[in-house]
Formats: sequence, structure tokens, C-alpha cells
Amino acid sequence: MVKTCGVSPIKLKVWLKHIDRENRYQTLNYVTDGEETTIIITVRNDIQHDVEKKLASIETQIIKKLGNYVYGTGKQTLEAVVGGMLAECGQTLAVAESCTGGMISARLTDIPGSSDYFERGVVSYSNEAKISLLDVSPNVIEAHGAVSAETAVAMAEGVRWLAQTTFGLAVTGIAGPGGGTDEKPVGLVYIALADEQAETQWRRCQFSGNRMMVRIKTVQTALDMLRQRLLTRGES
Amino acid sequence: MVKTCGVSPIKLKVWLKHIDRENRYQTLNYVTDGEETTIIITVRNDIQHDVEKKLASIETQIIKKLGNYVYGTGKQTLEAVVGGMLAECGQTLAVAESCTGGMISARLTDIPGSSDYFERGVVSYSNEAKISLLDVSPNVIEAHGAVSAETAVAMAEGVRWLAQTTFGLAVTGIAGPGGGTDEKPVGLVYIALADEQAETQWRRCQFSGNRMMVRIKTVQTALDMLRQRLLTRGES
Repeated sequence: MVKTCGVSPIKLKVWLKHIDRENRYQTLNYVTDGEETTIIITVRNDIQHDVEKKLASIETQIIKKLGNYVYGTGKQTLEAVVGGMLAECGQTLAVAESCTGGMISARLTDIPGSSDYFERGVVSYSNEAKISLLDVSPNVIEAHGAVSAETAVAMAEGVRWLAQTTFGLAVTGIAGPGGGTDEKPVGLVYIALADEQAETQWRRCQFSGNRMMVRIKTVQTALDMLRQRLLTRGES
Repeated sequence: MVKTCGVSPIKLKVWLKHIDRENRYQTLNYVTDGEETTIIITVRNDIQHDVEKKLASIETQIIKKLGNYVYGTGKQTLEAVVGGMLAECGQTLAVAESCTGGMISARLTDIPGSSDYFERGVVSYSNEAKISLLDVSPNVIEAHGAVSAETAVAMAEGVRWLAQTTFGLAVTGIAGPGGGTDEKPVGLVYIALADEQAETQWRRCQFSGNRMMVRIKTVQTALDMLRQRLLTRGES
């Protein structure tokens, strides 16, 4: 099994057509849950040794082709991979969540030993909580709204500053079913990631699906954004 | 389906023996997930009308027998029931979590419209977060430890005070697999619930199971403690 995040199964199928063709006795299956897609490799062969070799070879080809879209293999989870990367380089994290209501923190702290890198999580559902727990300026919320790039950035920078961590990760969005407008429809989510650099990275996402699906996709995209950042830092 | 929390399936079976015996063409099945048990009533009969009448009658008998252990029927969830009760009486809630790492907030905010009563959640994994975000005195943590009734009470009162909500719900415990001692073993959890009364209610729980199970049981017990409190308030 090869596990990916942030790329649609349709794209994956196109990108892996080449590998799918070259191997006649094998099947690639795609299981998608939100933004995560697991590629299940099946190989038909009676000789055990060959099967394992073949599986390993296809896995290697897929990973090579997909690059950083792959976060892990087998039973690895996104939160375990991100946690492992943080622990390895002694970096710490604080999280501020609005629409996901604690799901990012819950997934990260699902990993034993996560207290080594997870400092705090804040579920700032009200504007008052954003102001008092995250040091977000009321002017920012007033000017741009609670669901905006500016508020997401202020949340990420605020939680990072107050927690004194390497990273501050924040999400704010409209999970629905209510609360959407023409300008800011249900599924609109801003994700921001602050670190010691002056410019805080942020992303605007428009997710489809019901409340639960918007929440799940937001969690996955936020964790993957942190993973990609950790990969870039590791390279530089 | 009749849904219960805080009572073992063994006890349920003993208590419902009487109902199980009186009805020859029916079966009661018990599906348990952590502290929650769903009783599934099956009735065999060819006449549709009779079956529905019979199901309703057994459901009524079970609810009468189990009283407040029943939190709902059919597809109702604990978080929806608690949320409904809070919304109905215009009361608000703030949550402080340690070992559950955001799972209580995530379950509560799973309900559309939860922003009406859910003000904030704090995942205070570090002692610094407990002190700065929840106003817990360092002396309390020093004297009794982060996993103690005193710290749980201080967290519940702190988050309630800072958020200015009707209720403050807090949990602190050892989810494992590491971190346990002879005195404070894995699975030890303190849950506290503060409201405007001078004396904050708290419970000491010793849960069995792995990290995930301890976390799930803690969430369920905390939500049910709030539900029981809302029931009592409703009566008085």
C-alpha cells in the first residue's frame, strides 16, 4: 500500500498509467477518503518470493513517480509521519482550529509520545476566543471576517507566539451546512502555517462534501501542509 | 435501538432479564463501544403493524427500567443530545482537555449549529498551556501533579471563568502506553465539571484498554457527566 495526500485518484490513475501497463499480472486499486488516497498493489503469482520482490519493485516505481505526494506506506498514518518528522528534528507545534473543532489536535495526539512536540491546541469557535487565546486583533476579524486569509495567518502566528513553538498551524472555514454566503460558500477554508520566517504561508481551499467531509479534508490538508513544510526545511 | 452510557452490558443484561423473558418472539442484542452500549431490539412477526407496536412497547419498557442511563434512541448521538440540551436552555460550554487531545471538542463541534453553545476548547498538553490558557496555579500542578482531581477542577474552573460560559468541562489523565506509575497507572483519568456553583463536581475513573480506548471512554464519560448534570438542573 502506498499512501498519498492532496492529489485526486483521477490524476493518480493518469500518472501511474505507465506503471499499470508495464506489469501484466498486477492490479492497482485506489481507495479514497477525503484528500487521502491509498494505492493498493495486488500481484498475482504462485511463487511467494517473486510476489514480494514484484510488490517492492512496483512500490518503488510508484513512490519515484509521485514524489512528495506520497506520505507513507503500509499502515503509516499522516499524523504519525508528521509527528515522527517533528520529533526527529526536535521541533514543536501549536494548533489553532475553528471549523475542525479539535480534530487536528485529536489526530496529532493520537500518537503515543506526541507530548514531546505537541504543545497546545486551541479550538477558537467564538471571536472572543480568537482574540483572547490567540491574540488575533479584533480589527483583523472586523476588516476581513473570521473566515479569511488574514485571520488564519493571525491565528497561526498568535498561537505560535503564545506557545513559543517552532510551528503554528491554524484553520478557519465554513464547514456547513449553514453559514455560507455567495462570497464565502460552505467548504471555503483557509489554512495558515507560521514558523520563524517573516512571511507566514497560507492556502485557500474550496472543499466539496457535507460537514464531516469538509472537516476531514481540512484536517488532512493542514497536516499535509505541515509535512510538506517539514520536507522543505529538511532539504534546505 | 436504545442507547446507553456509563453502564456495562453485563449489568444491562441482568437488569433487562425480566423484559427479555416476558417476550418470546424478540431478541435483545448489546453492541458496546467503550462506555456506550446500544441495545438492539429485534421482533419476529409477519404483521408489520404488530411488530412496530411491539418494538415501541419494548423500547418504552427498557427506557423505564434504565432511567437516566439511556441517553437516546435510534440514530441519536451523545454529542447531539448534550448539544440539544444546552441549546434548549441557552447555556454555553468551554472545554479543557489533556489526555483526549481535542476529541471532546471535535465530537461536540460535529453538530451543526454547535457554535451557539460551544465557546472554546483548549488542548493543554503542556503544563505551560494549563497555566497560561486555563489559569491553573503552578502550585496546584506542583503539589498534586498534572493528573489529579485538583488539577482537573482548576482546569474546569479556569476555562469556564476565562470563557465566561455556563459550564467548564475538563479532563486530565494518562492515556498510555507510557507515562504510568504504580500510584497513577495508565487509564487513570480525572474529569471535572464546573458551573456557577461553589463546589465543582469531579470524578476519578480507571479505564481499561489501549490508548485509543482510554481516550474514547474518557470522551464518552465526560459528555455523559455533562448530560447528567443538565438533567439534574432541568429537574431542579
